[in-house]
Amino acid sequence: MTTHRFNQPLGGNEMPRFGGPVTMMRLPSQPTAEGLDACFVGIPMDIGTSNRPGTRLGPRQIRDESRMLRPYNMATGAAPFEHLQVADIGDVPINTFDLKKSVDIITEFYRGILAHDVIPLTLGGDHTLTWPILRAIKEKHGPVALIHVDAHADINDEMFGEKVAHGCPFRRAYEDGCLINDKVFQIGLRGTGYGPADFDWGRERGWRVVQAEECWHKSLTPLMAEIRAIIGDAPVYLTYDIDSLDPAFAPGTGTVEPGGLTIWQGLEIVRGAAGLNLVGCDLVEVSPPYDPSGNTALIGANLLYEMLCVLPGVGKGHAD
Amino acid sequence: MTTHRFNQPLGGNEMPRFGGPVTMMRLPSQPTAEGLDACFVGIPMDIGTSNRPGTRLGPRQIRDESRMLRPYNMATGAAPFEHLQVADIGDVPINTFDLKKSVDIITEFYRGILAHDVIPLTLGGDHTLTWPILRAIKEKHGPVALIHVDAHADINDEMFGEKVAHGCPFRRAYEDGCLINDKVFQIGLRGTGYGPADFDWGRERGWRVVQAEECWHKSLTPLMAEIRAIIGDAPVYLTYDIDSLDPAFAPGTGTVEPGGLTIWQGLEIVRGAAGLNLVGCDLVEVSPPYDPSGNTALIGANLLYEMLCVLPGVGKGHAD
Amino acid sequence: MTTHRFNQPLGGNEMPRFGGPVTMMRLPSQPTAEGLDACFVGIPMDIGTSNRPGTRLGPRQIRDESRMLRPYNMATGAAPFEHLQVADIGDVPINTFDLKKSVDIITEFYRGILAHDVIPLTLGGDHTLTWPILRAIKEKHGPVALIHVDAHADINDEMFGEKVAHGCPFRRAYEDGCLINDKVFQIGLRGTGYGPADFDWGRERGWRVVQAEECWHKSLTPLMAEIRAIIGDAPVYLTYDIDSLDPAFAPGTGTVEPGGLTIWQGLEIVRGAAGLNLVGCDLVEVSPPYDPSGNTALIGANLLYEMLCVLPGVGKGHAD
Amino acid sequence: MTTHRFNQPLGGNEMPRFGGPVTMMRLPSQPTAEGLDACFVGIPMDIGTSNRPGTRLGPRQIRDESRMLRPYNMATGAAPFEHLQVADIGDVPINTFDLKKSVDIITEFYRGILAHDVIPLTLGGDHTLTWPILRAIKEKHGPVALIHVDAHADINDEMFGEKVAHGCPFRRAYEDGCLINDKVFQIGLRGTGYGPADFDWGRERGWRVVQAEECWHKSLTPLMAEIRAIIGDAPVYLTYDIDSLDPAFAPGTGTVEPGGLTIWQGLEIVRGAAGLNLVGCDLVEVSPPYDPSGNTALIGANLLYEMLCVLPGVGKGHAD
Amino acid sequence: MTTHRFNQPLGGNEMPRFGGPVTMMRLPSQPTAEGLDACFVGIPMDIGTSNRPGTRLGPRQIRDESRMLRPYNMATGAAPFEHLQVADIGDVPINTFDLKKSVDIITEFYRGILAHDVIPLTLGGDHTLTWPILRAIKEKHGPVALIHVDAHADINDEMFGEKVAHGCPFRRAYEDGCLINDKVFQIGLRGTGYGPADFDWGRERGWRVVQAEECWHKSLTPLMAEIRAIIGDAPVYLTYDIDSLDPAFAPGTGTVEPGGLTIWQGLEIVRGAAGLNLVGCDLVEVSPPYDPSGNTALIGANLLYEMLCVLPGVGKGHAD
Amino acid sequence: MTTHRFNQPLGGNEMPRFGGPVTMMRLPSQPTAEGLDACFVGIPMDIGTSNRPGTRLGPRQIRDESRMLRPYNMATGAAPFEHLQVADIGDVPINTFDLKKSVDIITEFYRGILAHDVIPLTLGGDHTLTWPILRAIKEKHGPVALIHVDAHADINDEMFGEKVAHGCPFRRAYEDGCLINDKVFQIGLRGTGYGPADFDWGRERGWRVVQAEECWHKSLTPLMAEIRAIIGDAPVYLTYDIDSLDPAFAPGTGTVEPGGLTIWQGLEIVRGAAGLNLVGCDLVEVSPPYDPSGNTALIGANLLYEMLCVLPGVGKGHAD
Repeated sequence: MTTHRFNQPLGGNEMPRFGGPVTMMRLPSQPTAEGLDACFVGIPMDIGTSNRPGTRLGPRQIRDESRMLRPYNMATGAAPFEHLQVADIGDVPINTFDLKKSVDIITEFYRGILAHDVIPLTLGGDHTLTWPILRAIKEKHGPVALIHVDAHADINDEMFGEKVAHGCPFRRAYEDGCLINDKVFQIGLRGTGYGPADFDWGRERGWRVVQAEECWHKSLTPLMAEIRAIIGDAPVYLTYDIDSLDPAFAPGTGTVEPGGLTIWQGLEIVRGAAGLNLVGCDLVEVSPPYDPSGNTALIGANLLYEMLCVLPGVGKGHAD
Repeated sequence: MTTHRFNQPLGGNEMPRFGGPVTMMRLPSQPTAEGLDACFVGIPMDIGTSNRPGTRLGPRQIRDESRMLRPYNMATGAAPFEHLQVADIGDVPINTFDLKKSVDIITEFYRGILAHDVIPLTLGGDHTLTWPILRAIKEKHGPVALIHVDAHADINDEMFGEKVAHGCPFRRAYEDGCLINDKVFQIGLRGTGYGPADFDWGRERGWRVVQAEECWHKSLTPLMAEIRAIIGDAPVYLTYDIDSLDPAFAPGTGTVEPGGLTIWQGLEIVRGAAGLNLVGCDLVEVSPPYDPSGNTALIGANLLYEMLCVLPGVGKGHAD
Repeated sequence: MTTHRFNQPLGGNEMPRFGGPVTMMRLPSQPTAEGLDACFVGIPMDIGTSNRPGTRLGPRQIRDESRMLRPYNMATGAAPFEHLQVADIGDVPINTFDLKKSVDIITEFYRGILAHDVIPLTLGGDHTLTWPILRAIKEKHGPVALIHVDAHADINDEMFGEKVAHGCPFRRAYEDGCLINDKVFQIGLRGTGYGPADFDWGRERGWRVVQAEECWHKSLTPLMAEIRAIIGDAPVYLTYDIDSLDPAFAPGTGTVEPGGLTIWQGLEIVRGAAGLNLVGCDLVEVSPPYDPSGNTALIGANLLYEMLCVLPGVGKGHAD
Repeated sequence: MTTHRFNQPLGGNEMPRFGGPVTMMRLPSQPTAEGLDACFVGIPMDIGTSNRPGTRLGPRQIRDESRMLRPYNMATGAAPFEHLQVADIGDVPINTFDLKKSVDIITEFYRGILAHDVIPLTLGGDHTLTWPILRAIKEKHGPVALIHVDAHADINDEMFGEKVAHGCPFRRAYEDGCLINDKVFQIGLRGTGYGPADFDWGRERGWRVVQAEECWHKSLTPLMAEIRAIIGDAPVYLTYDIDSLDPAFAPGTGTVEPGGLTIWQGLEIVRGAAGLNLVGCDLVEVSPPYDPSGNTALIGANLLYEMLCVLPGVGKGHAD
Repeated sequence: MTTHRFNQPLGGNEMPRFGGPVTMMRLPSQPTAEGLDACFVGIPMDIGTSNRPGTRLGPRQIRDESRMLRPYNMATGAAPFEHLQVADIGDVPINTFDLKKSVDIITEFYRGILAHDVIPLTLGGDHTLTWPILRAIKEKHGPVALIHVDAHADINDEMFGEKVAHGCPFRRAYEDGCLINDKVFQIGLRGTGYGPADFDWGRERGWRVVQAEECWHKSLTPLMAEIRAIIGDAPVYLTYDIDSLDPAFAPGTGTVEPGGLTIWQGLEIVRGAAGLNLVGCDLVEVSPPYDPSGNTALIGANLLYEMLCVLPGVGKGHAD
Repeated sequence: MTTHRFNQPLGGNEMPRFGGPVTMMRLPSQPTAEGLDACFVGIPMDIGTSNRPGTRLGPRQIRDESRMLRPYNMATGAAPFEHLQVADIGDVPINTFDLKKSVDIITEFYRGILAHDVIPLTLGGDHTLTWPILRAIKEKHGPVALIHVDAHADINDEMFGEKVAHGCPFRRAYEDGCLINDKVFQIGLRGTGYGPADFDWGRERGWRVVQAEECWHKSLTPLMAEIRAIIGDAPVYLTYDIDSLDPAFAPGTGTVEPGGLTIWQGLEIVRGAAGLNLVGCDLVEVSPPYDPSGNTALIGANLLYEMLCVLPGVGKGHAD
């Protein structure tokens, strides 16, 4: 066996795919982000959801189904484990009985992560979690550009009178000054709402809203080129709600909206983020009870891997 | 809270989405169609099915999963509850032990509905039900144009020697003079059959048959423009068999045929019916036991909502 | 059709079992408890759960599966709808983003119910809900005897530092003086814990703890005779956690403990409460995503019906 | 390999259990009952069901899951394939669009079977089918004793105004003089009903009704001894509704009633029929969509095998 | 009923779709390929799989779900049963405890098949099986052109040190000289790997590798035209791994890779093989436990039917 | 927080139950058994199964569902983590493509474990694995007494001509002299077989076979007393096949036999092993795809915990 400079996923020729540790990609785990270039971290939370529950089990199932992932990206040639030190640092100990406290626990936890020079890739969990992450991101990087892939704008001022819920994170992040407003992109929005303001609120703040209907029947590679040009070298956060995908592709989620993105478009979006100055990523809203096959989690795991492949510093693989 | 002129769906800020009444969109229910512009009505029937059963539970699951639907259509701007009085009038009490009697019960029930000036939107139920509805429609409106979205032509003369079955409704409707034959459109047909006559019988009567293969890899918006031009201001009935969609999008149905329409095309078809003189609509063949996630029913609920959004008299929403 | 003095469940000869309203037993619904002797009410909540989620959907699935229930109890002869006016009054609008607020919403809602002379039968929802109900019960009836059927004692002082969670309701109820301590019975407790105090805390307060092992291989009819003798005519609250049953009988729940009660014992317990001065009952912790067949909810519906059958004033049916 | 005098199930050492023909026990199939002592026959019907559908797929899944059955009965020593010629003769071609016609098709089909000197073991299908079988049985054997294992009495005069439905077969069989009334046993009845007559109607005709509650917590071997004594050498038909079992044991059925028989009792009942003059047996109401694991069908297959093991003429196995 | 020259699938007007024999398309079965032009044969094997198991049950579920297939291809006009004698010859009795022995059993079994002038259509089973089939094919036809539709190249030299596994068949077939290297096409490859060699190894041998990304957003009809031109009249083997399809279309498989082909492309590929000199086909890797709805198997059944429709000698149907 | 002398399971007040490491009981993991008194180890294998597959995923799901287990046994008072150092040492890297090699890998792996003074508790995996474990056990402890809980005797000489399969381990162990024949107990055997020898072969060697029928309707506590008296202080191995339980309790397994043990009996058996000189234990045949709820694995996890609680040296907990 070759000696590697960096952590490697446990390979299928050393342990059957269905054995071995249940960490992301069967990577080594460690308790903190120390010494890492990138880390996978789970937030097992669903108390911010407004319809079907279950995302609390998302990180577990994503890790489980990530077992098939091999180190090399056949489409792009990226070989992340030849360029970055990566590990799985486990889960954030949220308080499942108090959403507001959990939000603060998350911010504090990410402060701890970001004390190291590391890029966190988060396994959700419901979308409430992006707000507290962005608060910690801002403390380190200042306001960021945002690529937000989702069926919903998540910019409600309140849900049921509450400021903290999975439909509100980007309103809160805006209020907290976490975002560079002319570099915010919301892709895949659709469905029903309470009125045009659901999408226009962001537009009025300078955000670019790409409704799902604009994406139908075509490649999103041109859109991503445009987005890259606008973002330039600003720090970028990528937040990917699995419900951006049409439920044909990702049935295991809680607030399903038909007419969504395809998985091909999803891959184009993430791959289209290559070259950007990514400072953090998340993949949220996988709800295992609604897809017992595990395929939704498996797709989530693949998208997280694709995010890893486009982080700054990741290059092609060497000849094998 | 604003006072509304018309019935409104119970909102998620008044009752969590997973609570409240199990009516279509959590609308008020009432026993008759009196005073309504449009009504949702269920026909819990599967004794007309020839392969997998389960559509008897379709109306229940469609109503259950409709709970996420909000009043405003983000894509089209339609705001049906600002323009129409809508309610859920419950289910038709079919005789589940006798298909032939059920067919007459349905016609009689729709006569009762159509005694009011109302457009019925039907939650199926197997496709047998469209024939008895069309009989009642004809009594009020005369022969109608038909937009029939389906994997199957449903024009068998007989199945197993029977005239009443879910593969025969449009043969029967033709015989009963319910249709304007040069304004009949069958979209999404495909799969295997007993011979070319399965699709050509309709063509020979002047119907336009758009096989699924003609739809692959493209938008159906142009097709709908063409259809609108041909139909003009004739009264139109829209019947949507969920199995028209490829099973990737709608796995929970009984007579599955691969190679079907996409959900994007499905939405284009229904939205493309805007401006027509719709006098009735149905969504049939959702079989809950074959999709425990509920997503097929949820898609059915969305399509029914989209039908509501294109009814005559539905306009845009006012500023919120 | 006979004219009935009281509300009747919609019968299978008037509407197929799979049609009709999705209320408990297909009873009429009404917005308040006014004029009722007993009412069914749902609390769609799971944010108090510590392991698997899903009980937020419990009331919906219990109502759905209650559709098979006919009015007469073949085993006991009870005919509740000949003696009581019963209806389904819908769901409590809990705040799904804040457990502590929800607890107060529930108490307030039950104050409203108990302003009428009615016995509430609650469809849960996670077990956190029993505490706020007991607070309202105490305001009307003073402290009550308690029959608590469960796998867990639910007397934790805190969970994750919180006082409100589904493992704490009876500690809170004790502190609030809701219970007559020498008339508290916990039946079916078992599994793993943090130490003997998990069960002994109650014993030290005078409660009778019947561990599951004491119940194995025998009828619980004698136990219930003993319990009735001790309770006498004190007001009694019956709280039934579906996880008291072994998971063979009730797989669809969140904190599963093997080695539990049988359904025969479960029925003996509820039927054994006949003659007591019941002032309220609940059935909690049904989690639909963990039993897509619906059978756990169906069993929950049956147990709720059996509770109705033992309420004060319910007698045998008249000759038919 | 030994040469056998009779058909043998295909063994696991000749073809993996998950391969080979999908016949009952992987026995040879033949188109008629000619030359057989016993035959398995399917009736793929569910249009007589009043709640959940799916029994139309029962025969297919029972056959599929019967693949694990080996020839020798370890508990009783019975070796049916050393004493009887047995085959699977396929399915009755019912008319799935007309229940009343199907009933006549079944009777006619069984006349054909009974033209041979053979005992039919029927794989259902909904319970409606027992009536038309009993009509054919009567033509050959005269009225018969009946062992009827079920959650329901199935003696409704009508359901929804219909005489033919899965809740009526024994009323019809009684009217047609198919039964020896003082030798009719209904075991396992329970649940809710419309009044005491649901169980008393049979009692008034001399039938013995053993409610489920009488069976709880004990062996049914003594009951079967009593039944055998009463029946003596009269011809007997055994009809086994899988819903007689508690849903813990048989979740995959349509009209579930908690508090049922155990599988141990179920086996005691069938094994307790040894020595009787059985002339026919059926196993009905397995609904595959409600148990995707296949276990309910597997239990049904085992019960059918146990029925085969108690047919007249079946003895012990010879030394191997 | 018309007399047919060839075997016909049992029609839905003679036996309900959910009854009848569980053979492919409800065709007659026979023990050998004698007298047949084409035969369906199952290989119930999953011991070559490296991730999720279950393909051992593939042939059973494919046959079960093939029951809806009617004889005539509505899209292409092909009427295979008017031109070919076809039957189902059952399963290969693999040794499920020894993969290496199974491989030899398969080759020997196909030698037996190919002793007749017949084209085998194989129901898998894991992809290991294509190698032993190709060995037998080569003995009869010499090296063949290959159309290989898959998510994976399956050209590993070893897996876990083994030469026989479902990731190695085409490496082995290459080594055994089974392939015409300039007429090998691999379509749909994608996902992660150990390095570029995973796809380049074939390219270095002259194979054409069409990665999934090349297929996105377009029709594959032009590709197939190109392939037909290159292959000319060489004998061709078509091997179709269901995981070539995106998991949205075929969730029930074991080594899932997002971003795959659509079912429309899948149909275009198979239909695009019309006119080629096909000498054998297989459809592999359907894993029933991962799609309890049966839809993946149903799609597999349809693809096998489409393969039958493009075999040499199959023409259009005659007027009915 | 208290400082503990030994490893402790991660508690629910430090990390929500649905977060944290996926090790057995969320214990620390370590690569070898060094320094441990007992260890959990997984064998992810199903290539020895003869019917349904899936046990390869058993260890993963058992670990996942073990997350609810708390340290103290409420029924017995055992507090294993106050007396033993326990960890999860991961999985045996079996060769999933070669069963015979896997058997040797297992023996070699357990030699490594047993080089330490530790008791292994194995998470299966199919039952083939007990033979290679017993070979390693014998090398250290000599022949052992055996408590074998199962639906099947697993003493076939061959399956499909093979000596290594999940139906053969105890024949092999016998031949290898691993067992003290007058101290072998097989409990729960039942179902169908090829002849009486299936159970009598063991009896002829002095083994005690307790067929399931002997266990029906009663406690097994007396049986265990008897077994303890016979075994005395001989070293004992406990092997628990989850299919010993009736499928009502453990649906998720591959070779289901109705009429099995209850979970109460299962717990009595394991708890009845307290005081014996246990040198190893396993829990095998959990097949996750056949119980998506996870309950079968959860029961397996509980039984493994109960085994831990009866290991030599485990005492009661101290006052908390």
